[in-house]
Amino acid sequence: MEFNKEFTAGIIIIGNEILSGRTVDKNTSFIAMWLSDRGISVEEVRVIPDKKEAIIKTVNDLRKKFAYVFTTGGIGPTHDDITAECVSKVFNQRYQYHPEAYKILEEFYRNQEFNDGRKKMAKMPEHAKLIPNPKTFAAGFYVENVFVLPGVPEILQAMLPLLDKNIKIGKKILSVSIDSKLRESSLANDLSTIQDRFKTVDIGSYPYFKDKPGTILVLISVNKIDIEICEKEVRDLITKLSKE
Amino acid sequence: MEFNKEFTAGIIIIGNEILSGRTVDKNTSFIAMWLSDRGISVEEVRVIPDKKEAIIKTVNDLRKKFAYVFTTGGIGPTHDDITAECVSKVFNQRYQYHPEAYKILEEFYRNQEFNDGRKKMAKMPEHAKLIPNPKTFAAGFYVENVFVLPGVPEILQAMLPLLDKNIKIGKKILSVSIDSKLRESSLANDLSTIQDRFKTVDIGSYPYFKDKPGTILVLISVNKIDIEICEKEVRDLITKLSKE
Repeated sequence: MEFNKEFTAGIIIIGNEILSGRTVDKNTSFIAMWLSDRGISVEEVRVIPDKKEAIIKTVNDLRKKFAYVFTTGGIGPTHDDITAECVSKVFNQRYQYHPEAYKILEEFYRNQEFNDGRKKMAKMPEHAKLIPNPKTFAAGFYVENVFVLPGVPEILQAMLPLLDKNIKIGKKILSVSIDSKLRESSLANDLSTIQDRFKTVDIGSYPYFKDKPGTILVLISVNKIDIEICEKEVRDLITKLSKE
Repeated sequence: MEFNKEFTAGIIIIGNEILSGRTVDKNTSFIAMWLSDRGISVEEVRVIPDKKEAIIKTVNDLRKKFAYVFTTGGIGPTHDDITAECVSKVFNQRYQYHPEAYKILEEFYRNQEFNDGRKKMAKMPEHAKLIPNPKTFAAGFYVENVFVLPGVPEILQAMLPLLDKNIKIGKKILSVSIDSKLRESSLANDLSTIQDRFKTVDIGSYPYFKDKPGTILVLISVNKIDIEICEKEVRDLITKLSKE
Protein backbone atom coordinates (compact mmCIF):
# COMPACT_ATOMS: atom_id res chain seq x y z
CA MET A 1 0.00 0.00 0.00
CA GLU A 2 1.52 3.29 -1.10
CA PHE A 3 0.38 6.72 0.03
CA ASN A 4 0.52 9.79 -2.18
CA LYS A 5 3.23 12.13 -0.94
CA GLU A 6 0.58 14.65 0.11
CA PHE A 7 -0.60 12.20 2.78
CA THR A 8 2.79 11.32 4.24
CA ALA A 9 4.68 12.53 7.28
CA GLY A 10 8.06 12.19 8.94
CA ILE A 11 8.81 12.58 12.66
CA ILE A 12 12.07 13.85 14.12
CA ILE A 13 12.69 13.09 17.78
CA ILE A 14 15.41 15.45 19.01
CA GLY A 15 17.06 14.47 22.24
CA ASN A 16 20.03 12.72 23.74
CA GLU A 17 17.80 11.15 26.41
CA ILE A 18 16.10 8.92 23.84
CA LEU A 19 19.35 8.00 22.05
CA SER A 20 21.03 7.05 25.30
CA GLY A 21 18.20 4.68 26.13
CA ARG A 22 17.31 6.34 29.44
CA THR A 23 13.95 7.48 28.14
CA VAL A 24 11.57 5.50 25.94
CA ASP A 25 10.03 7.71 23.25
CA LYS A 26 6.25 8.01 23.56
CA ASN A 27 5.76 10.88 21.16
CA THR A 28 6.11 8.85 17.97
CA SER A 29 3.23 6.63 18.92
CA PHE A 30 0.96 9.55 19.87
CA ILE A 31 1.71 11.60 16.76
CA ALA A 32 1.44 8.58 14.46
CA MET A 33 -1.96 7.56 15.78
CA TRP A 34 -3.26 11.13 15.59
CA LEU A 35 -2.09 11.35 11.97
CA SER A 36 -3.41 7.93 11.08
CA ASP A 37 -6.92 9.05 12.12
CA ARG A 38 -6.50 11.87 9.62
CA GLY A 39 -5.38 9.63 6.80
CA ILE A 40 -1.72 10.61 7.03
CA SER A 41 0.86 7.83 7.00
CA VAL A 42 4.10 8.24 8.99
CA GLU A 43 6.80 6.93 6.64
CA GLU A 44 9.92 7.56 8.70
CA VAL A 45 11.04 8.51 12.19
CA ARG A 46 14.51 9.71 13.03
CA VAL A 47 15.92 10.09 16.51
CA ILE A 48 18.87 12.47 16.56
CA PRO A 49 21.06 14.18 19.16
CA ASP A 50 20.93 17.83 20.26
CA LYS A 51 23.53 18.74 17.67
CA LYS A 52 23.20 21.57 15.15
CA GLU A 53 24.43 19.78 12.04
CA ALA A 54 22.27 16.72 12.75
CA ILE A 55 19.12 18.78 13.31
CA ILE A 56 19.59 21.02 10.26
CA LYS A 57 20.40 18.14 7.94
CA THR A 58 17.59 15.91 9.17
CA VAL A 59 14.91 18.62 8.98
CA ASN A 60 16.08 19.47 5.48
CA ASP A 61 16.05 15.84 4.35
CA LEU A 62 12.61 15.03 5.68
CA ARG A 63 10.80 18.25 4.75
CA LYS A 64 11.54 17.51 1.11
CA LYS A 65 10.61 13.85 1.39
CA PHE A 66 7.24 14.15 3.11
CA ALA A 67 4.20 16.44 3.17
CA TYR A 68 4.52 17.06 6.90
CA VAL A 69 7.38 16.97 9.36
CA PHE A 70 6.91 17.00 13.11
CA THR A 71 9.84 17.64 15.42
CA THR A 72 9.73 17.05 19.15
CA GLY A 73 12.14 18.37 21.76
CA GLY A 74 14.73 21.09 22.09
CA ILE A 75 12.52 24.18 22.43
CA GLY A 76 12.91 24.82 26.15
CA PRO A 77 14.96 27.45 28.00
CA THR A 78 18.28 25.64 28.44
CA HIS A 79 21.59 25.55 26.57
CA ASP A 80 20.75 22.19 24.96
CA ASP A 81 17.53 23.57 23.42
CA ILE A 82 18.64 24.47 19.92
CA THR A 83 15.79 23.29 17.69
CA ALA A 84 14.31 26.76 17.00
CA GLU A 85 17.71 28.16 16.08
CA CYS A 86 18.37 25.23 13.74
CA VAL A 87 14.97 25.47 12.04
CA SER A 88 15.68 29.18 11.44
CA LYS A 89 18.86 28.13 9.62
CA VAL A 90 16.96 25.53 7.58
CA PHE A 91 14.61 28.21 6.24
CA ASN A 92 17.22 30.97 6.04
CA GLN A 93 15.23 33.11 8.43
CA ARG A 94 16.45 35.27 11.26
CA TYR A 95 16.26 33.67 14.73
CA GLN A 96 14.53 36.31 16.81
CA TYR A 97 11.83 37.01 19.39
CA HIS A 98 8.33 36.33 18.15
CA PRO A 99 6.34 39.33 19.46
CA GLU A 100 3.23 37.36 20.40
CA ALA A 101 5.16 34.45 21.95
CA TYR A 102 7.21 37.00 23.92
CA LYS A 103 4.09 38.78 25.21
CA ILE A 104 2.49 35.52 26.36
CA LEU A 105 5.60 34.56 28.34
CA GLU A 106 6.10 38.07 29.77
CA GLU A 107 2.55 37.95 31.10
CA PHE A 108 2.99 34.39 32.43
CA TYR A 109 6.18 35.36 34.32
CA ARG A 110 4.90 38.78 35.49
CA ASN A 111 5.47 37.89 39.16
CA GLN A 112 8.83 36.19 38.57
CA GLU A 113 12.07 37.20 36.94
CA PHE A 114 11.64 37.17 33.15
CA ASN A 115 15.20 35.92 32.64
CA ASP A 116 17.09 35.10 29.46
CA GLY A 117 16.18 31.40 29.59
CA ARG A 118 12.49 32.27 29.78
CA LYS A 119 12.78 34.85 27.02
CA LYS A 120 14.62 32.33 24.86
CA MET A 121 11.45 30.26 24.57
CA ALA A 122 9.99 33.12 22.48
CA LYS A 123 12.83 33.00 19.97
CA MET A 124 12.01 31.36 16.66
CA PRO A 125 12.38 31.81 12.91
CA GLU A 126 11.32 35.31 11.77
CA HIS A 127 8.20 34.15 9.92
CA ALA A 128 7.19 31.30 12.22
CA LYS A 129 3.52 30.86 13.05
CA LEU A 130 2.68 29.95 16.63
CA ILE A 131 1.31 26.68 17.93
CA PRO A 132 -0.29 27.69 21.23
CA ASN A 133 0.67 25.81 24.38
CA PRO A 134 -2.34 25.56 26.67
CA LYS A 135 -0.29 23.83 29.39
CA THR A 136 2.85 25.83 30.05
CA PHE A 137 2.54 28.80 27.66
CA ALA A 138 5.86 28.44 25.83
CA ALA A 139 4.55 28.13 22.27
CA GLY A 140 5.62 25.78 19.53
CA PHE A 141 5.66 26.99 15.96
CA TYR A 142 5.63 26.00 12.33
CA VAL A 143 7.30 27.17 9.15
CA GLU A 144 5.89 25.80 5.90
CA ASN A 145 5.46 22.06 6.47
CA VAL A 146 7.68 21.75 9.57
CA PHE A 147 5.84 21.64 12.89
CA VAL A 148 8.00 22.19 15.96
CA LEU A 149 6.68 20.72 19.19
CA PRO A 150 8.06 20.21 22.70
CA GLY A 151 9.45 16.89 23.92
CA VAL A 152 7.40 16.58 27.12
CA PRO A 153 4.60 14.16 26.15
CA GLU A 154 1.89 15.82 28.28
CA ILE A 155 2.49 19.18 26.62
CA LEU A 156 2.84 17.79 23.12
CA GLN A 157 -0.43 15.91 23.55
CA ALA A 158 -2.21 19.13 24.51
CA MET A 159 -0.78 21.02 21.53
CA LEU A 160 -1.08 18.55 18.67
CA PRO A 161 -4.91 18.68 18.40
CA LEU A 162 -4.61 22.45 17.80
CA LEU A 163 -3.02 21.62 14.43
CA ASP A 164 -6.17 19.99 13.13
CA LYS A 165 -6.85 22.69 10.55
CA ASN A 166 -3.24 22.56 9.26
CA ILE A 167 -3.55 18.98 8.09
CA LYS A 168 -5.13 18.10 4.78
CA ILE A 169 -7.29 15.16 5.73
CA GLY A 170 -6.79 11.96 3.72
CA LYS A 171 -8.82 8.79 3.80
CA LYS A 172 -8.95 7.47 7.34
CA ILE A 173 -6.50 4.60 7.77
CA LEU A 174 -8.45 1.59 9.01
CA SER A 175 -6.83 -1.18 10.97
CA VAL A 176 -7.91 -4.53 12.36
CA SER A 177 -5.86 -6.45 14.88
CA ILE A 178 -6.35 -10.21 15.29
CA ASP A 179 -4.63 -12.46 17.83
CA SER A 180 -4.23 -15.71 15.90
CA LYS A 181 -2.76 -17.64 18.85
CA LEU A 182 -0.76 -19.54 16.19
CA ARG A 183 2.96 -19.65 15.56
CA GLU A 184 3.97 -17.20 12.85
CA SER A 185 5.66 -19.98 10.89
CA SER A 186 2.42 -21.98 10.71
CA LEU A 187 0.64 -19.00 9.16
CA ALA A 188 3.34 -17.73 6.83
CA ASN A 189 2.55 -19.56 3.58
CA ASP A 190 -1.22 -19.09 3.54
CA LEU A 191 -0.94 -15.53 4.74
CA SER A 192 1.37 -14.74 1.89
CA THR A 193 -1.24 -16.07 -0.56
CA ILE A 194 -3.90 -13.84 0.97
CA GLN A 195 -1.57 -10.81 0.91
CA ASP A 196 -0.91 -11.40 -2.81
CA ARG A 197 -4.62 -11.18 -3.53
CA PHE A 198 -5.29 -7.98 -1.55
CA LYS A 199 -3.20 -5.18 -3.00
CA THR A 200 -5.02 -2.46 -1.04
CA VAL A 201 -4.52 -4.12 2.36
CA ASP A 202 -1.21 -4.36 4.23
CA ILE A 203 -1.05 -7.49 6.37
CA GLY A 204 1.48 -7.24 9.17
CA SER A 205 2.48 -10.22 11.23
CA TYR A 206 3.88 -9.75 14.75
CA PRO A 207 4.93 -12.80 16.72
CA TYR A 208 4.96 -12.78 20.51
CA PHE A 209 6.27 -15.20 23.09
CA LYS A 210 4.37 -15.15 26.38
CA ASP A 211 3.40 -18.48 27.97
CA LYS A 212 2.86 -19.81 24.48
CA PRO A 213 4.06 -18.44 21.16
CA GLY A 214 1.43 -16.61 19.11
CA THR A 215 1.08 -14.03 16.38
CA ILE A 216 -0.86 -10.80 16.15
CA LEU A 217 -2.02 -10.07 12.61
CA VAL A 218 -2.68 -6.45 11.74
CA LEU A 219 -4.60 -5.46 8.62
CA ILE A 220 -4.28 -1.89 7.40
CA SER A 221 -6.17 -0.25 4.57
CA VAL A 222 -8.07 2.85 3.56
CA ASN A 223 -10.62 0.67 1.76
CA LYS A 224 -13.45 -0.42 4.05
CA ILE A 225 -14.83 -3.19 1.84
CA ASP A 226 -11.44 -4.71 1.02
CA ILE A 227 -10.33 -4.79 4.64
CA GLU A 228 -13.57 -6.50 5.66
CA ILE A 229 -13.27 -9.22 3.03
CA CYS A 230 -9.59 -9.69 3.84
CA GLU A 231 -10.37 -9.92 7.57
CA LYS A 232 -12.88 -12.68 6.88
CA GLU A 233 -10.31 -14.66 4.89
CA VAL A 234 -7.70 -14.26 7.61
CA ARG A 235 -10.16 -15.36 10.31
CA ASP A 236 -11.18 -18.37 8.23
CA LEU A 237 -7.53 -19.29 7.79
CA ILE A 238 -6.93 -19.09 11.55
CA THR A 239 -9.97 -21.31 12.20
CA LYS A 240 -8.74 -23.86 9.66
CA LEU A 241 -5.16 -23.92 10.98
CA SER A 242 -6.26 -24.05 14.63
CA LYS A 243 -8.01 -27.35 13.94
CA GLU A 244 -4.93 -28.95 12.39
CA MET B 1 30.99 15.70 23.78
CA GLU B 2 31.99 14.03 20.54
CA PHE B 3 32.73 10.35 20.11
CA ASN B 4 35.28 9.03 17.67
CA LYS B 5 33.51 7.30 14.80
CA GLU B 6 34.89 3.95 15.98
CA PHE B 7 32.71 4.23 19.09
CA THR B 8 29.46 5.20 17.40
CA ALA B 9 26.40 3.22 16.39
CA GLY B 10 23.15 3.67 14.51
CA ILE B 11 19.95 1.68 15.03
CA ILE B 12 17.38 0.86 12.36
CA ILE B 13 13.95 -0.21 13.55
CA ILE B 14 12.20 -1.93 10.68
CA GLY B 15 8.47 -2.29 11.03
CA ASN B 16 5.16 -0.75 10.12
CA GLU B 17 3.82 -1.47 13.60
CA ILE B 18 6.12 1.14 15.15
CA LEU B 19 5.48 3.74 12.43
CA SER B 20 1.73 3.36 12.75
CA GLY B 21 1.94 4.06 16.47
CA ARG B 22 0.31 0.77 17.50
CA THR B 23 3.50 -0.49 19.10
CA VAL B 24 5.95 1.52 21.21
CA ASP B 25 9.54 0.63 20.32
CA LYS B 26 11.44 -0.85 23.27
CA ASN B 27 14.43 -2.14 21.34
CA THR B 28 16.16 1.22 20.94
CA SER B 29 16.33 1.71 24.67
CA PHE B 30 17.68 -1.80 25.32
CA ILE B 31 20.32 -1.67 22.58
CA ALA B 32 21.38 1.87 23.51
CA MET B 33 21.92 1.03 27.17
CA TRP B 34 23.80 -2.14 26.31
CA LEU B 35 26.08 -0.17 23.97
CA SER B 36 26.50 2.68 26.42
CA ASP B 37 27.91 0.22 29.00
CA ARG B 38 30.47 -0.69 26.35
CA GLY B 39 31.42 2.91 25.58
CA ILE B 40 29.53 3.05 22.29
CA SER B 41 27.32 6.07 21.66
CA VAL B 42 24.13 5.69 19.62
CA GLU B 43 24.10 8.70 17.33
CA GLU B 44 20.98 8.07 15.30
CA VAL B 45 17.90 5.86 15.19
CA ARG B 46 15.70 5.48 12.14
CA VAL B 47 12.31 3.82 12.10
CA ILE B 48 11.36 2.74 8.59
CA PRO B 49 8.62 0.69 6.94
CA ASP B 50 8.88 -2.87 5.58
CA LYS B 51 9.77 -1.54 2.13
CA LYS B 52 12.75 -2.67 0.09
CA GLU B 53 14.00 0.72 -1.09
CA ALA B 54 13.73 2.21 2.40
CA ILE B 55 15.62 -0.67 4.03
CA ILE B 56 18.41 -0.81 1.45
CA LYS B 57 18.95 2.95 1.43
CA THR B 58 18.86 3.31 5.21
CA VAL B 59 21.26 0.42 5.88
CA ASN B 60 23.61 1.84 3.27
CA ASP B 61 23.47 5.36 4.74
CA LEU B 62 24.06 4.33 8.32
CA ARG B 63 26.70 1.66 7.79
CA LYS B 64 28.95 4.32 6.28
CA LYS B 65 28.18 6.89 8.97
CA PHE B 66 28.76 4.76 12.06
CA ALA B 67 31.04 1.99 13.31
CA TYR B 68 28.12 -0.33 14.09
CA VAL B 69 24.60 -0.64 12.76
CA PHE B 70 21.92 -2.71 14.46
CA THR B 71 18.70 -3.52 12.66
CA THR B 72 15.65 -4.97 14.38
CA GLY B 73 12.68 -6.65 12.75
CA GLY B 74 11.79 -8.27 9.48
CA ILE B 75 13.62 -11.60 9.76
CA GLY B 76 10.68 -13.89 10.46
CA PRO B 77 8.89 -16.37 8.19
CA THR B 78 6.18 -14.15 6.66
CA HIS B 79 5.81 -12.16 3.43
CA ASP B 80 6.56 -8.85 5.21
CA ASP B 81 9.94 -10.14 6.48
CA ILE B 82 12.35 -8.78 3.90
CA THR B 83 15.32 -7.53 5.93
CA ALA B 84 17.68 -10.43 5.11
CA GLU B 85 16.95 -10.11 1.41
CA CYS B 86 17.57 -6.35 1.53
CA VAL B 87 20.83 -6.69 3.46
CA SER B 88 22.00 -9.19 0.83
CA LYS B 89 21.39 -6.50 -1.79
CA VAL B 90 23.27 -3.90 0.29
CA PHE B 91 26.38 -6.08 0.30
CA ASN B 92 25.90 -7.46 -3.20
CA GLN B 93 25.77 -10.99 -1.87
CA ARG B 94 23.51 -13.81 -2.92
CA TYR B 95 20.41 -14.32 -0.72
CA GLN B 96 20.51 -18.03 0.05
CA TYR B 97 20.17 -20.70 2.72
CA HIS B 98 22.85 -20.54 5.39
CA PRO B 99 23.77 -24.22 5.92
CA GLU B 100 24.16 -23.97 9.69
CA ALA B 101 21.03 -21.85 10.19
CA TYR B 102 19.13 -24.31 8.00
CA LYS B 103 20.35 -27.30 10.00
CA ILE B 104 19.36 -25.72 13.32
CA LEU B 105 15.82 -25.05 12.06
CA GLU B 106 15.46 -28.47 10.41
CA GLU B 107 16.33 -30.06 13.73
CA PHE B 108 13.98 -27.72 15.65
CA TYR B 109 11.05 -28.52 13.35
CA ARG B 110 11.83 -32.25 13.04
CA ASN B 111 8.38 -33.21 14.35
CA GLN B 112 6.52 -30.59 12.37
CA GLU B 113 6.32 -29.65 8.73
CA PHE B 114 9.51 -27.83 7.75
CA ASN B 115 7.59 -25.52 5.40
CA ASP B 116 8.81 -22.69 3.17
CA GLY B 117 8.15 -20.02 5.81
CA ARG B 118 10.25 -21.89 8.33
CA LYS B 119 13.01 -22.51 5.82
CA LYS B 120 12.96 -18.84 4.86
CA MET B 121 14.33 -17.94 8.30
CA ALA B 122 17.59 -19.63 7.26
CA LYS B 123 17.98 -17.43 4.17
CA MET B 124 20.55 -14.68 4.49
CA PRO B 125 23.42 -13.04 2.63
CA GLU B 126 25.91 -15.59 1.28
CA HIS B 127 28.74 -14.63 3.64
CA ALA B 128 26.65 -13.78 6.70
CA LYS B 129 27.87 -14.92 10.11
CA LEU B 130 25.26 -16.23 12.50
CA ILE B 131 24.03 -14.62 15.69
CA PRO B 132 22.60 -17.58 17.61
CA ASN B 133 19.06 -17.36 18.93
CA PRO B 134 18.82 -19.21 22.25
CA LYS B 135 15.07 -18.56 22.49
CA THR B 136 13.41 -19.61 19.24
CA PHE B 137 16.34 -20.91 17.15
CA ALA B 138 15.86 -18.71 14.07
CA ALA B 139 19.27 -17.06 13.98
CA GLY B 140 20.15 -13.44 13.35
CA PHE B 141 23.30 -12.61 11.41
CA TYR B 142 25.87 -9.98 10.65
CA VAL B 143 27.80 -8.84 7.61
CA GLU B 144 30.70 -6.48 8.23
CA ASN B 145 29.39 -3.86 10.68
CA VAL B 146 25.66 -4.53 10.18
CA PHE B 147 24.03 -6.68 12.88
CA VAL B 148 20.61 -8.04 11.99
CA LEU B 149 18.37 -8.85 14.94
CA PRO B 150 14.71 -9.81 15.37
CA GLY B 151 12.02 -7.32 16.40
CA VAL B 152 10.53 -9.28 19.30
CA PRO B 153 12.11 -7.64 22.37
CA GLU B 154 12.40 -10.85 24.44
CA ILE B 155 14.36 -12.58 21.67
CA LEU B 156 16.52 -9.56 20.85
CA GLN B 157 17.42 -9.23 24.51
CA ALA B 158 18.59 -12.83 24.63
CA MET B 159 20.70 -12.46 21.50
CA LEU B 160 22.38 -9.09 21.95
CA PRO B 161 24.72 -10.20 24.78
CA LEU B 162 26.13 -12.85 22.43
CA LEU B 163 27.67 -10.02 20.39
CA ASP B 164 29.92 -8.95 23.23
CA LYS B 165 33.11 -10.05 21.48
CA ASN B 166 32.12 -8.23 18.25
CA ILE B 167 32.17 -4.81 19.90
CA LYS B 168 35.38 -2.88 20.38
CA ILE B 169 34.94 -1.61 23.91
CA GLY B 170 35.30 2.13 24.42
CA LYS B 171 35.42 4.08 27.65
CA LYS B 172 32.31 3.30 29.66
CA ILE B 173 29.81 6.15 29.36
CA LEU B 174 29.02 7.39 32.85
CA SER B 175 25.77 9.11 33.68
CA VAL B 176 24.31 10.81 36.72
CA SER B 177 20.64 11.71 36.96
CA ILE B 178 19.50 14.42 39.39
CA ASP B 179 15.91 15.46 40.09
CA SER B 180 16.25 19.19 40.74
CA LYS B 181 12.57 19.72 41.61
CA LEU B 182 13.01 23.16 40.06
CA ARG B 183 11.43 24.66 36.95
CA GLU B 184 13.74 24.34 33.98
CA SER B 185 13.54 28.09 33.34
CA SER B 186 14.88 28.84 36.85
CA LEU B 187 17.92 26.69 36.19
CA ALA B 188 18.66 27.62 32.58
CA ASN B 189 21.10 30.53 32.94
CA ASP B 190 23.34 29.07 35.66
CA LEU B 191 23.26 25.64 34.07
CA SER B 192 24.48 27.11 30.82
CA THR B 193 27.45 28.67 32.67
CA ILE B 194 28.34 25.29 34.17
CA GLN B 195 28.00 23.56 30.79
CA ASP B 196 30.38 26.10 29.24
CA ARG B 197 33.06 25.19 31.79
CA PHE B 198 32.78 21.39 31.40
CA LYS B 199 33.60 20.47 27.83
CA THR B 200 33.86 16.74 28.62
CA VAL B 201 30.44 16.53 30.26
CA ASP B 202 27.09 16.76 28.46
CA ILE B 203 24.41 18.26 30.68
CA GLY B 204 20.91 17.39 29.55
CA SER B 205 17.86 19.06 31.02
CA TYR B 206 14.48 17.30 30.95
CA PRO B 207 11.46 19.11 32.37
CA TYR B 208 8.46 17.18 33.69
CA PHE B 209 5.03 18.23 34.82
CA LYS B 210 3.50 15.99 37.45
CA ASP B 211 1.79 17.60 40.47
CA LYS B 212 4.44 20.29 40.32
CA PRO B 213 6.81 21.18 37.50
CA GLY B 214 10.38 19.97 37.91
CA THR B 215 13.47 19.13 35.89
CA ILE B 216 15.66 16.06 35.69
CA LEU B 217 19.28 16.91 34.96
CA VAL B 218 21.38 14.23 33.34
CA LEU B 219 25.17 14.43 33.25
CA ILE B 220 27.00 12.23 30.75
CA SER B 221 30.72 11.78 30.39
CA VAL B 222 33.45 9.22 29.95
CA ASN B 223 35.64 11.17 32.41
CA LYS B 224 35.06 10.07 36.00
CA ILE B 225 36.73 13.03 37.70
CA ASP B 226 35.08 15.66 35.51
CA ILE B 227 31.60 14.23 35.98
CA GLU B 228 32.08 14.14 39.75
CA ILE B 229 33.18 17.78 39.94
CA CYS B 230 30.40 18.81 37.57
CA GLU B 231 27.84 16.89 39.62
CA LYS B 232 28.95 18.74 42.77
CA GLU B 233 28.52 22.11 41.05
CA VAL B 234 25.08 21.17 39.77
CA ARG B 235 23.98 19.98 43.21
CA ASP B 236 25.30 23.19 44.81
CA LEU B 237 23.38 25.23 42.23
CA ILE B 238 20.17 23.34 43.01
CA THR B 239 20.65 23.90 46.75
CA LYS B 240 21.22 27.62 46.18
CA LEU B 241 18.22 28.06 43.88
CA SER B 242 15.92 26.00 46.11
CA LYS B 243 16.46 28.50 48.93
CA GLU B 244 15.57 31.52 46.78
